[in-house]
Amino acid sequence: MNAASSARLLRLQKLLPSEIKLDPATRNQYGGDKWFASHCPDAVALPRSTRSVATILQYASRHRIPVTPRGAGHGYVGGCVPLRGGIVLSLERLNRIKEINADDFVVVTEPGVITADLQAAVEKQNRFYPPDPASRKESFIGGNIATNAGGPRCLKYGVTRDYVLGLEVVLADGTPVRLGGRTHKNKTGLDLHRLFVGSEGLLGVITEATLKLLPLPPDRANLAVGFGSMRQAVRSLHAILDAGFLPAALELADAFTLTAAYRRTKSERLRGCRAHLIVEVDGQRASVRQEIKTLQRLIRRQHPLFVQAGFGPGQCEQIWQIRREFSYSLRDTGLTKLNEDIVVPRSRLEDLFAFAAQLQQKHGLQLACFGHAGDGNIHTNLMVDFTQPGAKRRSAAALDALFKQVLAWNGAITGEHGVGIAKQRWWPLAASPGVRQLHRTIKRALDPHDILNPGKFI
Amino acid sequence: MNAASSARLLRLQKLLPSEIKLDPATRNQYGGDKWFASHCPDAVALPRSTRSVATILQYASRHRIPVTPRGAGHGYVGGCVPLRGGIVLSLERLNRIKEINADDFVVVTEPGVITADLQAAVEKQNRFYPPDPASRKESFIGGNIATNAGGPRCLKYGVTRDYVLGLEVVLADGTPVRLGGRTHKNKTGLDLHRLFVGSEGLLGVITEATLKLLPLPPDRANLAVGFGSMRQAVRSLHAILDAGFLPAALELADAFTLTAAYRRTKSERLRGCRAHLIVEVDGQRASVRQEIKTLQRLIRRQHPLFVQAGFGPGQCEQIWQIRREFSYSLRDTGLTKLNEDIVVPRSRLEDLFAFAAQLQQKHGLQLACFGHAGDGNIHTNLMVDFTQPGAKRRSAAALDALFKQVLAWNGAITGEHGVGIAKQRWWPLAASPGVRQLHRTIKRALDPHDILNPGKFI
Repeated sequence: MNAASSARLLRLQKLLPSEIKLDPATRNQYGGDKWFASHCPDAVALPRSTRSVATILQYASRHRIPVTPRGAGHGYVGGCVPLRGGIVLSLERLNRIKEINADDFVVVTEPGVITADLQAAVEKQNRFYPPDPASRKESFIGGNIATNAGGPRCLKYGVTRDYVLGLEVVLADGTPVRLGGRTHKNKTGLDLHRLFVGSEGLLGVITEATLKLLPLPPDRANLAVGFGSMRQAVRSLHAILDAGFLPAALELADAFTLTAAYRRTKSERLRGCRAHLIVEVDGQRASVRQEIKTLQRLIRRQHPLFVQAGFGPGQCEQIWQIRREFSYSLRDTGLTKLNEDIVVPRSRLEDLFAFAAQLQQKHGLQLACFGHAGDGNIHTNLMVDFTQPGAKRRSAAALDALFKQVLAWNGAITGEHGVGIAKQRWWPLAASPGVRQLHRTIKRALDPHDILNPGKFI
Repeated sequence: MNAASSARLLRLQKLLPSEIKLDPATRNQYGGDKWFASHCPDAVALPRSTRSVATILQYASRHRIPVTPRGAGHGYVGGCVPLRGGIVLSLERLNRIKEINADDFVVVTEPGVITADLQAAVEKQNRFYPPDPASRKESFIGGNIATNAGGPRCLKYGVTRDYVLGLEVVLADGTPVRLGGRTHKNKTGLDLHRLFVGSEGLLGVITEATLKLLPLPPDRANLAVGFGSMRQAVRSLHAILDAGFLPAALELADAFTLTAAYRRTKSERLRGCRAHLIVEVDGQRASVRQEIKTLQRLIRRQHPLFVQAGFGPGQCEQIWQIRREFSYSLRDTGLTKLNEDIVVPRSRLEDLFAFAAQLQQKHGLQLACFGHAGDGNIHTNLMVDFTQPGAKRRSAAALDALFKQVLAWNGAITGEHGVGIAKQRWWPLAASPGVRQLHRTIKRALDPHDILNPGKFI
């Protein structure tokens, strides 16, 4: 940073003394997220109000200072790494739930509220905010909105975007606008608030959100099922959907994952298990209990190794704990996990698992696949030992082959995490020149001086 | 139209002889929709391919000729009236369902397919496309997308936007782009395809859509309930939601509507009925049958005048037939129906019905309210006898008072139909200067010469 830039940031600090931090200790904490890339910003802004956010952006816009908005820093793709320095604008102090209106089925919240806290608060009022990213106990609702977060329940309930009724956004030039509203339906003009959902900090800064709530389902139940082959698991999945079920979740895990889980848990039944399915339903108590019986019947036709049923929140959580163990057991392998969240059309699920097996052989790497099979969104984890010779090259080649195959199947290179830096290399493959041009057109219209999260994919 | 304009259109016709019509008989058929405004275009384009759409837009863009895209012309707000003349571009010849993929749960379709036909085609393959606008037997899926159509089932299933996975759009300058994809989840870049959903022909021309399908629910059941007061009906509605039900539909009708329906049908049970509720659930057969019993129990606490249950498609349709009779019976009154589709936050439902009663008294007009109460989207129909002195002035004043009150409640002036021409007058009240500016920014970025559907609300 040159002297002029430094002087400009000092002047901004004079405008907002308690909200702009320039000390290295603070700045060092705001360089990255859960991905490995990091870049120390020149300043950290910790605004306490929309007004302060507006002041910061107005100033940054006038002086062409990069501003990278940031939630809790729990992204997986380096989306909030301030590649060009400048200001990291953290929304952590805007952390108030402003209103829960149980009659209107809405919650009005600032962006810095932990998603799980927001869910717990509305559930106390018998209301339901369904999106459930794995990070929901650590990530902010604002970050969930900026990345359009998903989760297992999105199969039935849709993703974050589907719950965003209105947003207050501060535009690049510091203008605050309130978009959308609080009604569950709204056709007044363009759906501009949803343009900011999933925009990864490139179009504006979200300072308030009005979210749709649903009635809280009174009961839930699930099944954990082990199979001797992935084919049986995938057939069960298709049989469930063909029977007219749209479960709350349909999760699959592959043999590599299960082997690691067996090593960790010593659970005898995971031995020999080549595929694992979790199916969950929610709703009225009598319906849920009956539906689990029907699902068991459907699944037994595929000769599973075991079927375990969970009824009610406590038992259901025990079954989800198995899935969480999958993550821990991959960590136990000591390998570095490159977590990719590709999506394939549903008919390609079996092909994907087969392709992953080929990749392992060809590139001498381990691959663990598990995730939201119901919507084709499989977390494909490359397990790499970076101390091995050529590991970096081999993992890069495997990733490249994976993304290319996914695109050849009309799949998507990211279903939940976003592009960030991690997927930037494949953005030109995933988006045609016309699509990329349209992205630039929108970016230029909303952020003409390219100050918002510059250096990223657009 | 001057001689130069006329010569330009003749030249376009030479480029696409069988797709450009200049004869008055054809042009006169393409002046409007179901609203009363109309304007005869200078040319009608009936393209047979995306390529032709691109040629037309490229030509129109170069010569600054207005182009107003059009589906089946079943809108209620004059959205496809070519206010500034030029070309009406009808998508009626792009009428092919290109692919139904039951395994991927997607349908790929051209815009000129009748929505009900598309629904029937996917249901044959045990798949479900939920959005169900009242016009679905006459409107095009492309028009549904361009207006983000709703319908009763949107309470549970969401609106058209939630099913649009990908779009092929021809931009104002004639560039075709394929946005989004065919996976059920996708975080690759901005959600630009959804920017075109509900854009009322102002941003681009949709030439192909990839839509998400769901498993077809194997069964459905519903209840038709009469009440002595609206309060009892609204209380029942809240009790249903509080019990954790998210029904497929929750429809209310008011006393004026019911009186008209009694006059038409002579159905004894509608006599004295001041509110009418339809609640429908769908899903697994055993669940649906059980849930209807629970719902009956909940509703009986509000002492309804009658409760009629329908099980399975045949009986359910009989109950929906009652609702369709409401529309016919309003027509039977001989009055002109001004159909407004306002939305209020759910807690304001009773207030809205009370306010409608006040409006009747104050402005000497009749008001019939019925609609999608579950999401607060009530079709508020001003019933006007335009042969009466001052009727025009009084109805305008009543509409103005209605929209202002709805906005004061944080409601929306349109939940399904869009702004078009009909709501243009209230657009500045419904959208702040900042929001309107942002609309202009986006419009200018995508349509710099303002050739797409010019003269409308942006």
